[in-house]
Formats: sequence, structure tokens, C-alpha cells
Amino acid sequence: MLGKIALEEAFNLPRFAEKQRWWASMFATDPDKHAREMGDIADIRLQYMDKHGVGYQILSYTAPGVQDIFDRKEAEALATEINDYIAPAVKEHPDRFGAFATLSMHDPEQAAAELRRCVTQYGFLGALVNDTQRAGADGEDMIFYDSAEWDVFWATVTELDVPFYLHPRNPTGAMYEKLWAARKWLIGPPLSFAQGVSLHLLGMVTNGVFDRHPKLQVIIGHLGEHIPFDLWRINHWFEDIKKPLGLKETCKKTIREYFAQNIWITMSGHFSTPTLHFCMTEVSADRILFSIDYPFESFADACEWYDNAEINEVDRRKMGKENARRLFKLEKFKDCDA
Amino acid sequence: MLGKIALEEAFNLPRFAEKQRWWASMFATDPDKHAREMGDIADIRLQYMDKHGVGYQILSYTAPGVQDIFDRKEAEALATEINDYIAPAVKEHPDRFGAFATLSMHDPEQAAAELRRCVTQYGFLGALVNDTQRAGADGEDMIFYDSAEWDVFWATVTELDVPFYLHPRNPTGAMYEKLWAARKWLIGPPLSFAQGVSLHLLGMVTNGVFDRHPKLQVIIGHLGEHIPFDLWRINHWFEDIKKPLGLKETCKKTIREYFAQNIWITMSGHFSTPTLHFCMTEVSADRILFSIDYPFESFADACEWYDNAEINEVDRRKMGKENARRLFKLEKFKDCDA
Amino acid sequence: MLGKIALEEAFNLPRFAEKQRWWASMFATDPDKHAREMGDIADIRLQYMDKHGVGYQILSYTAPGVQDIFDRKEAEALATEINDYIAPAVKEHPDRFGAFATLSMHDPEQAAAELRRCVTQYGFLGALVNDTQRAGADGEDMIFYDSAEWDVFWATVTELDVPFYLHPRNPTGAMYEKLWAARKWLIGPPLSFAQGVSLHLLGMVTNGVFDRHPKLQVIIGHLGEHIPFDLWRINHWFEDIKKPLGLKETCKKTIREYFAQNIWITMSGHFSTPTLHFCMTEVSADRILFSIDYPFESFADACEWYDNAEINEVDRRKMGKENARRLFKLEKFKDCDA
Amino acid sequence: MLGKIALEEAFNLPRFAEKQRWWASMFATDPDKHAREMGDIADIRLQYMDKHGVGYQILSYTAPGVQDIFDRKEAEALATEINDYIAPAVKEHPDRFGAFATLSMHDPEQAAAELRRCVTQYGFLGALVNDTQRAGADGEDMIFYDSAEWDVFWATVTELDVPFYLHPRNPTGAMYEKLWAARKWLIGPPLSFAQGVSLHLLGMVTNGVFDRHPKLQVIIGHLGEHIPFDLWRINHWFEDIKKPLGLKETCKKTIREYFAQNIWITMSGHFSTPTLHFCMTEVSADRILFSIDYPFESFADACEWYDNAEINEVDRRKMGKENARRLFKLEKFKDCDA
Repeated sequence: MLGKIALEEAFNLPRFAEKQRWWASMFATDPDKHAREMGDIADIRLQYMDKHGVGYQILSYTAPGVQDIFDRKEAEALATEINDYIAPAVKEHPDRFGAFATLSMHDPEQAAAELRRCVTQYGFLGALVNDTQRAGADGEDMIFYDSAEWDVFWATVTELDVPFYLHPRNPTGAMYEKLWAARKWLIGPPLSFAQGVSLHLLGMVTNGVFDRHPKLQVIIGHLGEHIPFDLWRINHWFEDIKKPLGLKETCKKTIREYFAQNIWITMSGHFSTPTLHFCMTEVSADRILFSIDYPFESFADACEWYDNAEINEVDRRKMGKENARRLFKLEKFKDCDA
Repeated sequence: MLGKIALEEAFNLPRFAEKQRWWASMFATDPDKHAREMGDIADIRLQYMDKHGVGYQILSYTAPGVQDIFDRKEAEALATEINDYIAPAVKEHPDRFGAFATLSMHDPEQAAAELRRCVTQYGFLGALVNDTQRAGADGEDMIFYDSAEWDVFWATVTELDVPFYLHPRNPTGAMYEKLWAARKWLIGPPLSFAQGVSLHLLGMVTNGVFDRHPKLQVIIGHLGEHIPFDLWRINHWFEDIKKPLGLKETCKKTIREYFAQNIWITMSGHFSTPTLHFCMTEVSADRILFSIDYPFESFADACEWYDNAEINEVDRRKMGKENARRLFKLEKFKDCDA
Repeated sequence: MLGKIALEEAFNLPRFAEKQRWWASMFATDPDKHAREMGDIADIRLQYMDKHGVGYQILSYTAPGVQDIFDRKEAEALATEINDYIAPAVKEHPDRFGAFATLSMHDPEQAAAELRRCVTQYGFLGALVNDTQRAGADGEDMIFYDSAEWDVFWATVTELDVPFYLHPRNPTGAMYEKLWAARKWLIGPPLSFAQGVSLHLLGMVTNGVFDRHPKLQVIIGHLGEHIPFDLWRINHWFEDIKKPLGLKETCKKTIREYFAQNIWITMSGHFSTPTLHFCMTEVSADRILFSIDYPFESFADACEWYDNAEINEVDRRKMGKENARRLFKLEKFKDCDA
Repeated sequence: MLGKIALEEAFNLPRFAEKQRWWASMFATDPDKHAREMGDIADIRLQYMDKHGVGYQILSYTAPGVQDIFDRKEAEALATEINDYIAPAVKEHPDRFGAFATLSMHDPEQAAAELRRCVTQYGFLGALVNDTQRAGADGEDMIFYDSAEWDVFWATVTELDVPFYLHPRNPTGAMYEKLWAARKWLIGPPLSFAQGVSLHLLGMVTNGVFDRHPKLQVIIGHLGEHIPFDLWRINHWFEDIKKPLGLKETCKKTIREYFAQNIWITMSGHFSTPTLHFCMTEVSADRILFSIDYPFESFADACEWYDNAEINEVDRRKMGKENARRLFKLEKFKDCDA
């Protein structure tokens, strides 16, 4: 299918090329290729896009990125640097690329201000944040965005009317040692990513973020980070037990209503047709978006699967591009459907 | 359907009735009823079983149970007390009840010895353990059973030819504070249970427990604690990336092969037909077992759902009782199929 | 769910009450009740609608109706009588009822003219026709609408921009004797209805009706009269074998494209969640419409199933009412969503 | 997967090679290749089998075959000739080939006798018959096997303890003209095949064949000839309406029970994973059998699909070979699982 839109697609800063190469050696079978693709914006990428029918990509800074930097000043400076770097790069190809703002999440006001700057000055299409913000003098703290002090940030997100992508990052600090060090093969896509984002997103649900910001649109990747599988069980315990015990005070709607009104899932890194079918019945094709997770995943794996997956043609178009056009107001990009 | 077999069904010791009542007040809408049902073995339970077509139950001590006791001596004594208590109780109704051994998991040799005692002397049908064993002077440690020192235990399990049920328990200690305290509504069935068991079971997979003990049969509840949803993604990363980087040394088969040969899932607390259908395609009806999770869940919710769920009659019989008869060698209990 | 829209909902003329009573005795367990409900327009019906959350019904004359009358004059007169009868009846409740035109299908020009009269003068929402028109001096002929001479009719349908519902009727004549008389229990919903409509609709596909009238919208009931089950196999033979042998001359698009662009299916009389899920993946929730098939089916069976079926809330709204509003341009009926 | 077993696999008599070539020109894009493959038993076929992991094939005479011959003597002579021809051919490769008996179905006693001869003398594994037997002086009659006079035949089938494969044939005679001639592209796999077999099999159900012969095992191809799609609707009308009106006299069990106890479906010619998944939930992987429909379908299409289809490994083995081994008692063919 031509004109697909993909939105969990990473880049990094050229000055970190060496570090990226070293980092890639821990999870990539070809670290050089990975680092090369990560450092590129348009040269390699546009070739892949043209070859595999991807019309438009929304770029975001690679994980863990700024969320790994526990010094606030350093984090804020890096976020600004990243945004200033990617803005002119995507502007060169306005019909092929958009960008998510990179944010330091140490301070809600500052994060809101930087997002506003990126959306209003640069035309960025939203923000992508890598789970909790590492913080504290020793990097042992984790800032979640599900408490009331983050209302100022979410108010800005909804006022700007842009989506927020909650992307994973690796576990760090004491938790890393306790849970993950002895079972390192589970770090990342096989398990830890989904566990982190699920906790964070469901924390937002139960702590009332979506009740206080009913227009907020949050995107999660990897076909929903395990949550669609458990909607029945979550709903059963929330509605039948936890709400009678008090949850109803912060969480007025059902989990299925939040998924119908506030949450989107992408296919990034999860190219399974039966699982996609299951998600279509549990959360609707209207709330599912194609994505790749490049360069952690390849264009070929994602696009050859999706273009040939056994799904009907109406939903293939919707999930492949029409939903994203609607969510990101991309109607003007006529030529991305070539 | 008559003669259903259920295997995640809890009881507690009468001497903890008061504590259970207090504990139940935190997660049950009717704590008195919950405590009463938990303390009962056969009086209330047989009425439910007869009313709802459950022919046979395998009883286990309620979570967190012995796994919450970080003093080794105390843990071992309690496990012995529980096993000695339930053995004569199930013996009174041999055609209706069986039992899982309760184990202290501080020491592999001792756990193996107690399991052997329960299986050979009492005829218990396997063991049920509540995730990691809390340990350490301050209860901050967590013992996982996926390291080589537990081989002696798994060798005994497979020698005795009985299954091992890996049941959840709540997070404790510093991790509790960091991740769960501020989002308490997610503790238990909505999220933390599945996250704990998934990590533990996949740790066993990646650390080679099933390669070293290829006959080991492990059961997990709640339709597989989220893992069936992610089999494609786990398989993709294990086979394409993590094995080239070294995982193949401890984990020789594919995740789908372990699920076909070593792992069983039960329906405890997850009464969703679409999710059950999805699991049937991902792990096969041959590896799925009916269960309730009584008294946390009700017989009525589980049985009325299952008896009327839109599944074919061949698989309804298999998942409802025939698979359990095969796994636990219950063929002799003819009358449980009345 | 309130405000559901249903569109395979039958009535008959009061003067045929006695005949309907006799006829109902052959397929209804309570023929009196059936005849009473069939003869009623708004009295009984509105009570059911209010009780079961149906906001709006599109009424149509019961099968086989005019399609069973092989005398052309008689057929045309009866169709006119029916339309003139139902028009004022639905006008009394414009926020609750609409109507499909009843048509004699002996002559394409006459059928087109009567449809035009009904749509322009009475505001009818389309036409519902009961499969082939019985014809010939002895009633042995069957007129299909998939030949070129019916282009004048289809041109009118698309010019009027209204949908056409292809409803079943029973087999008649020699075919009845040869195939159905000795296995009478299969006549109607269990088999013959679907076989008739499938042949007719796929005849329209292969004989090029949709190619010559690309805006034509045809609705079929009963979750698609078996065709969604076979889309893969039909597509495989059409595209790989029959088109190379010549089918491409009349049938330029794929069967999946016709289902995406020209065909709608309703849930009338098929209240199965797994089958609905399967149809959602094969033809998209965007092309599926709630319906009952009253009074052959009951409001209670249809609505209690649909309101509680395990589907996501986005698609429940779409299939339950939003799709029908869009297809029939019912946006003005605000109050049907009470 | 190695060692697959396939059971809707056709051959013809060499003396009909020319006729087959002409016949193939009407439905095959490469008639020469088709005729060559049809005329071959082991030379071409074993190459395909080895290349695509098919361990064992059960051969049957191609449709319409003997069922198209309305002269009884001629039909009986041809059936005998075919059986005598294929018996030594499969005996040359006992670890790779078995055969279904070809039967003239003009006379139940004669059909039973020929089946008995084939099973007891030749070791054939059952019978495959192409829908109704054409009969009558002008070939206009159709003999169905669902009336009481066929009990003698079904008694022999169950006494011999072999399955009966009900395969399609094309419509003939007046019905052909009335329904199919003007929409010829629907003849065969796209529609007419399934309509014929569905009517015949459901006629057997409603006319009591399975009640009078409860051990009878009937196989239908193409994922069940549309019936699995409609099990809910058939069951609803049979149980709620038709049985109260009298169907219960000949048809005591539910349609789902007949599918659980008497009916098997194969994947011949229907290589769709979503449809297979749907059938797994509706009729159980325990009643589904791999097949190809060679040489109408190719080994490559069938086997590459099946070997890579997104199904779990337990059911892939069962449907690919273990079910067939059990049904046909093929345990002795150890080497077919190479």
C-alpha cells in the first residue's frame, strides 16, 4: 500500500554517533548499520520509504534519550538541542517528514513550554517521551506523569491539540539490579518495555489524568504494550471491585471508554496478524496506527507484512494512513498518498 | 458442563481467619464473605461445585502465603503446617478434591524434599508457589527460581512427574514504593500480578530451566499473564536478534516450542471469550485449562461464562476437564464426570 | 446501547392477515403472535423499540412478497399498494421509522420508475427486493438482475443515491422439488436463503453490475449470506484462474474491493459474536450494520446479544447506528440517539 | 513441516488423458500441465511431496468422475476399473500413498459391496464420492444419499470403520441452465461446489443419517463448504424453531454435536489463516485436516502457506498430520514423518 504513515521512527544526534555505535553493539546484530541508519535523517530513510510505500514519517529522538539524563539542566539543554536540530531537517521535506518534540520531563512547566515552542514555532506534531524521567542525585528516582502536578503539562498538550506518544525506556537503577540484571535477555522488546509503559499509562488512567483532561490523546506502541489482552480482566476488577473500594473517585469512565476516547495503539515492532485481529476486536481499527520502530525494526519486515497481511481493504487503508491523517491533521499532505 | 476441573482455588488456615478478614477488607467488597469462603474447605465449596458443575478442585494455599515470609525457619514450618492441614481434608473427599503442595522457597533442597513428602505420602498433585520468595534480613530480597542452583528442585519436580503452578504475589519492599504505591489500584489482578509472573516464567525460559529439565510442566493462570499476546514479538527478538547475540547458549528452543511442550495456561480470573479464542490460536486448546480463582472470583462468574461461551463442544470438553485429567492423571476419578 | 438502527424489519398488508397466519404456521412456533407482529406497524413495534434501545427502523414488505407473484400486472399493482400503504404510516413517526420501497421486478423501467416515485414523493430510503422475481406463465422462471438489461434500473438507484437491499426468498418451482422438497428443514434461514442471495449477489459481481455502476450500494443480511467466509477462496479463483480465462472482461476489481466499496452486510438473524468478529476482520466494521429480522427474530434476542457482545465500544457505536446514519443520511434524526 | 498428510488429491485414468486435456482447458490456465499432473500417480507427485514436506497422500478419482455417469452399468464398470487401476499403483509406495474407493452411487447395495471389496481386498482407507449421483434416462435426476434406502450403505461404511469424503461436483441438467449458465464464473470453487455439498451434508443431518449411524465419519473439504460460518444460525433455527415444529423426530442432536462427533473438515483449496482460525474456534483443531486439492491447487500454495501460517505448533502438528493418522489409523506409517 502506498502512502503509509509511520510514527515510531527514531533518529539521534550526529555528535553521539560513536556512543550509538557502542550502544547498538548490545542489542543489534549489525551495530554499524544500525548506527548509520539512526544517524541519518533523509538519505537512507527516503530510499527505504520509497521502496516500501511509506509516504510520511514522524521522527522522534531515540530512547532512552533525554529521559535517561537525571540532571535537569543537562536534560533540558539536550531536548532543546534535539528539537533545534530536527526542525530544519524535516522542513526540507515537508511532504515526507514531521517531528515529535523531545522533552525533558523534570519539570511540568518547562516541558509544557518547550512543547509549545516546538508546536507553534516549528510545526511539530506532538511529543514523544520515553516513559519515566530518570531523576535524583544518583539517578535512582523515576518521575511519572500521572500525578496532579503534571496537570499543567497535560493542559498544554490538549490546548495545543496534539497527541502524546508514551514510548518505553529501559529499567535503571536498583530496579534494574533486582529484577532485570539476572534475566537480561528480557530487557527491551521481549518484556521490560511493555511492563514500563503499561504501568505508566494505566497509572495515568487510575490517577485521573484522562478525567481531568478528557481531550488528551495518548499513543502507545507495540500493539498496546499488552493492555489490549487484559481489557476484560482490568475492566472486571476496576468496575466490580476497585471502584466500589474507591477507584471511582479518580477514574470515572471504564477502561474500555478510555481506550475508545483517549488512547491509540501502533503496530511498531509487532507484526503479527492474529494479534492485530485481536486488537481490532478489542480496541477498533479506528484507534490503531501503522508504524515500524525503525531502525530497531526494518522497513522490509514491517511493510511486507502489513501490505500482505490478511485484513480487509477498508481497515488496511484506515490503519495504514487514514487514521494518522485524521489524528495529526495531515490532510494537506496530498502527495504522501502517491 | 458437568465435571469441570478447577485448579487455582484457594484456602487458608483457620488460625489466620482474623488476619484474612482484615486483609480481605483491602480488596474484597464483602470481606466477611470472602474470609468465610477462604476458611472453608468443603462445606460452602461443595455446594458451589454441585450447583455450577465443577466435579473436582485442586486446592492451594492463598497468596502471598509462605512466599511473603522472609524468615526461612518460619516459612518452612508454615508450609509443613499447611500441607499437614490440607492433606486429611482433601482425603475426606477424594473424588472431589486434590491439593497442590505449599512450599517454602528459601532453599531448593528443602523445597524439593517437602514436595516429595507431599506427593509420595499425601498424593498431592503438584506444587503451587506464589512467584518469588521474599527473603533477606529485611524482606527486601526476592528469590527467583530460574538460576542453576534451583536445578535440584526442578529435577525433583520432573522426577515426581507433577506440574508446578507459578502463581502471582504482590510486589513488596522498595520496589513496591517506587512503582506501585502511588498507583495502588494497579496492584494485583489489573497489572502487578501478570508483570511478576511473566518476568519469572520468561526468566526460567531464557535462563535455560526448560532446556535443562525438558519434561518440566509449568502452569500459569489468567490466560497466560499477558505472554500469549506477545509471542510473535518475543519470538522475533529472541530468534532474530537475541540468539545471535548469545541467548542461544541457554535457550535452545523457540518460545513457541516451550509453550507447546512445557507451559500450560488456565482461565482463572479471565472470563473473556475473544481472549480465550486468541489464546486457542496462539497456544492451542490442548494447553488451556479451566479454573476459577475462587474465592477471589465467584463460581457463578466463571462457570456461567464458560458453560455458555461461544466455543466448539470438542474444545469445551478438553479445556473444561479432559486436559486436566490428562495432565494430573485423574482418569481414575470416574465420578467427577457425573 | 440506545438509538440502534435496524433495517431488515418486516410488515405486511392487513388484508393478508389470514394468509399470513396460515403461512406463519409453517415456520413459527407461535403463528398468532407472528401474524400479529407482522400486521402491526407502530403499536407493538414502538414498545419493543423503546424497551430494547432501538431508535429507528427501516420497514420493508415481508418476503417473498411481490417477488413471488409471477403475473406482472398483479405484481406491479401490489407493489404500488404496499408503498402507498406504508408511506403515510412511517410519516406519522418520522423520527422512528423509514421505509424501503417494494418493487415488482418484472420490468427494469417500471421498477426504476416506482423506486423514483417512492424516493422522491415519499422520502423512502432505498429498496428491498426478495431475491429473484418469479415469472413466466407457470411461475417457473426466475428473473435475476445481473444482466445488462437491468442497467437502466441500477442507473436509477445510483442516481437517486439510495441503497438496495437484496433479501432472500424461498426456492420455487422445479428447483424446489429437485433440491429442497426432500430436505425441507433446510429451507429458509438454515440454508436456502443464503444460497439464493449469494448466487444473485456474486452474479451481479461477475456479470459486471458494479463495474458499470461503481457507486451502487447493495446490502445483504445475515452477516453476508456465507460470502465473507469464502472471500479468500473466491478471490484466489477469480484473480488467479478465472480472470486469466476471461472473467476480467466483466469484473475488473477484486471481490475484496467490491466488498470494500459496494457491499454492506447486516447482522439480521445472525447473533454470533465470533462470526461477527470474523466479519469485522474480513469486511471491516465500517461495512457492517445492526439489524434484527423482526418478527422472524425477536428484539430481545438481537438487542440483548448486541448490547452485551464482546466488541469494543467504538465499533459497537458504528455498527449499531453510526454506519446506518451515514449510509442512509439520517443525521437529521437527532432524537433517535436518545 | 515434514510428514504432512493430504487427502483431497486427484488422479484420472490414462485412457481419459485427451478428454482431461480438453476439460482442463475450461478451468485451468495451463491445461497441459494440469492434465499431465492429473494423469500421473507417483512420478511428478513424489517430487512435489518431497519438496514440500508431504509424507503421505490419499488418492481419489477426480470429479465429477463416476457421479457424472447416469447409466448405472457404465458407472459401476468405471468405478471398478478405477479401483483396480489405483490399487496396485498405491501398493508400490505403501509408505507414501493410500486410496479412497471410487463408487457408483446408483444402488446402495452395490456401492456398499464395492466399498467392502476395496477396503478388505485392497486396504483402501475409505471412499470419496462427488456429491449427488447423476441418474435418470436423460441425466436429469440427482440421487442424494440422505434417504432411508441408503442406510444399508452407511451401515457398511461404519461396519468397515472407514471415513466417507463428500466431495463436490458441478451442477448439471435443468438446474444448470436455470441457475448457473448465465453466471458461469461461479461454477466450481467460487460458489457451486460449496452449495452442493452443504445441501447434501445438511440433508444427511436433518434426515437422520447420523442418528441412525452415530459412528459415521464424514469429511468435507474447503474448510467446511461454508457451514462453519453459519453454525450459530443453523443451530438457532434448528433448536429454537424447527425442532419444535418437528425436526426433532429425525435429528436428535444439535448441529454442533454432529460437527463434534461425525464431521471433519479439510483445508483443501482454502489457504486463509483468519478463516482457519475461525474454524478452529467453531469446530476445533481436533476435527480439521490439512489437504491440498492437487492438481487443481498447487503443492506450493498449500504447503508454503500452511508451514508458515500463524498458528501454534501444537495444532499445526495435529491438523497437519496427527489427526489424519488417528482418523485413518496410519500409525504404522512411521517413515511418513521423516
